Amino acid sequence: MAFVKKPVTGMKDILPEEMQVRDYVQNVIKETYRSFGFTPIETPCMENISNLSSKQGGENEKLIFKVLKRGEKLKLEMAECEADLVDNGLRYDLTVPLARFYSNNSNNLPSPFKALQIGNVWRADRPQRGRYRQFMQCDIDILGEPSNLAEIELILATTTTLGKIGFGNFEIRINERRILKAMAKYSGFSEEAFDKVCIILDKMDKIGREGVSEELQKEGFSEQSVKKYLDLFELTGDTASKIETLCEKLGDCLEEGVKSSLLEIVTSVEATKTADFKMVFDPTLVRGMGYYTGTIFEIAMPEFGGSCGGGGRYDKMIGNFTGNDVPACGFSIGFERIILLLLESGFQAPTQPKKIAYLIEKNYPAQKLCEVIKKAQKEREAGNQVLVARMNKNKKFQKEKLSAEGYEAFEEFFNR
Amino acid sequence: MAFVKKPVTGMKDILPEEMQVRDYVQNVIKETYRSFGFTPIETPCMENISNLSSKQGGENEKLIFKVLKRGEKLKLEMAECEADLVDNGLRYDLTVPLARFYSNNSNNLPSPFKALQIGNVWRADRPQRGRYRQFMQCDIDILGEPSNLAEIELILATTTTLGKIGFGNFEIRINERRILKAMAKYSGFSEEAFDKVCIILDKMDKIGREGVSEELQKEGFSEQSVKKYLDLFELTGDTASKIETLCEKLGDCLEEGVKSSLLEIVTSVEATKTADFKMVFDPTLVRGMGYYTGTIFEIAMPEFGGSCGGGGRYDKMIGNFTGNDVPACGFSIGFERIILLLLESGFQAPTQPKKIAYLIEKNYPAQKLCEVIKKAQKEREAGNQVLVARMNKNKKFQKEKLSAEGYEAFEEFFNR
Repeated sequence: MAFVKKPVTGMKDILPEEMQVRDYVQNVIKETYRSFGFTPIETPCMENISNLSSKQGGENEKLIFKVLKRGEKLKLEMAECEADLVDNGLRYDLTVPLARFYSNNSNNLPSPFKALQIGNVWRADRPQRGRYRQFMQCDIDILGEPSNLAEIELILATTTTLGKIGFGNFEIRINERRILKAMAKYSGFSEEAFDKVCIILDKMDKIGREGVSEELQKEGFSEQSVKKYLDLFELTGDTASKIETLCEKLGDCLEEGVKSSLLEIVTSVEATKTADFKMVFDPTLVRGMGYYTGTIFEIAMPEFGGSCGGGGRYDKMIGNFTGNDVPACGFSIGFERIILLLLESGFQAPTQPKKIAYLIEKNYPAQKLCEVIKKAQKEREAGNQVLVARMNKNKKFQKEKLSAEGYEAFEEFFNR
Repeated sequence: MAFVKKPVTGMKDILPEEMQVRDYVQNVIKETYRSFGFTPIETPCMENISNLSSKQGGENEKLIFKVLKRGEKLKLEMAECEADLVDNGLRYDLTVPLARFYSNNSNNLPSPFKALQIGNVWRADRPQRGRYRQFMQCDIDILGEPSNLAEIELILATTTTLGKIGFGNFEIRINERRILKAMAKYSGFSEEAFDKVCIILDKMDKIGREGVSEELQKEGFSEQSVKKYLDLFELTGDTASKIETLCEKLGDCLEEGVKSSLLEIVTSVEATKTADFKMVFDPTLVRGMGYYTGTIFEIAMPEFGGSCGGGGRYDKMIGNFTGNDVPACGFSIGFERIILLLLESGFQAPTQPKKIAYLIEKNYPAQKLCEVIKKAQKEREAGNQVLVARMNKNKKFQKEKLSAEGYEAFEEFFNR
């Protein structure tokens, strides 16, 4: 069969330059999250296909890379549909595997359990700039904590991490699924229409208030209801007063305690944050995944159009899998977007060791070679990076290439 | 569909305790290899199925997890065999992807190129203790270096890393494919019989000299040839004198330069090593993969029956893929075996931060909560790990569990 030089469609090779940035960012993420008490875990990249097809994953379930059954289990001649051929699939996110992990291991885990996952996921999406079919996700989740302490810790941990990587002047946009529901109810929309209303509301930043109004009316909602609904979004003042104004308007339509909990999150984070960012209440924030039950949030970077990560509370998801509800809340950093932003800004990972290259002439005698290697070993012990390499015929070109890689000192060894 | 709690057959969830050891070992590996001038790279976990079915992978090619074609490309009703259904597969090692990576990116890589890869591979092997269907490999390779400087650097880098992790009193067994070939030739075995002879020789440690003799004669080799062959393995003295004795006996059957190169590797490594290990010449060392062309080596740990890693020179492999030979040599650490040994020995990662738990009574007022979080943020800035959690009803049990996780200091916050 022919040899294919390119990586699989939509996936990419990662070269040394990018790996340096990725490794650095991963280390900052791990260390910072660890300081907040999150502990790393890992699940296999493959999941039982029935776990991936449970309707929790929404649109992502259409994008699964499926794995063929092996050996005697594969009965090609009897297969009537795709499902007969596959037993496993590659995970499309880290949340479904976390729910399975928790249900499988909860006896051996503390409560609350604060998990950190950094791992690849796969989606057979249409490839486009900055979007790949294999990409890294970086999630923190708190399982078993019903109070808003979970939200506060997640937002503080994520923003502290972003600050340490060097990001500033960004926003954390926050909203509540229960506020979204109350707004729909207040305006006279039926409960069944809620998902449809959210899908249209989600386009606000692209089509504006007028566009949303038109689309809602096209769906059959009355002009009056739509106006009542859209007027709710007209809020002024700071984040806290916007929350207060809207929640008071919603009155009995809104569940008790939502307002005070949301205010607590915003004020606690603002009072204890270490990074340069703002908490912003955004009643148009929807977030796609249907499994969210409470708070939802998103990172908005001025340098980047879309969101650079997000999360929220999903108190019913583990119960859907296992039958027993477990309060859960998570925050995911868009790792690939963060890396893209850093690479485009010419970011250099700080605290590099000194890079030294020893170039050794061909036929350098073995006895003397030992002395050179001993010297290299000493430099390495001292924390420096030493490359021991044969001198190329075109030494000038070799040194130019090494300089471009960051080698700053050269020593040459000749057989004289 | 039913929800499955267990991981996919033969794969495993990695819990916090093991992750701590894995993360620590990975960091030592990365830092040490980096000090030797190896640069991390990554390739996608999936490869084009034709690259994985090129016969380079030997037996592993039978163990591939294959990925189903997607969308219109999957024509189930027209499929006659498995090959019609799949376009990609999960990689079974890191060497085939490295060869593809190099042929795809060599214009942007230095020469010689020293690559470090740490990544998962998949093999649908029969699951057994300590062997999983998803496991981590950790490979270093030097591409473009024809001289034995590659072997010296690979062995030094690997053994320095093992030493830093805490391993000592181990052996690096070394041999040469060309010596194996010369021994077969010297004994009168035909060139075509070479692979068969090697497969039998490989059993020496299990069935002994007598067993090997019997099996060779069963294959039709004369008693005289077999005796001549097996007598070659009777060597005394230190590593260097064993190599000299054997190579002199082999005379013209052995390619020129093999003896001096092997001696150079052994003496250079012994003179410059930093870890506690011995270089041992082992003429029975075969190593399965057919692609090796020169030196081969293996790590033998006293604590572990089999090999804990190995490698060798494979100067023809990249050429088999691309048409242009590139000298290549690699060394792979058996990451999962190393971790298993460490876990079984009760290994604890050194230099842990201080772990502090703040337990907060339910209904603790928001205003005062901010003060607690501020305090936690300060501790985190100072390098400590702080868990902020709600106090459970059974506080004693909660603290016991946290102590077991390594939390050594507790502070409790009551609403009084």
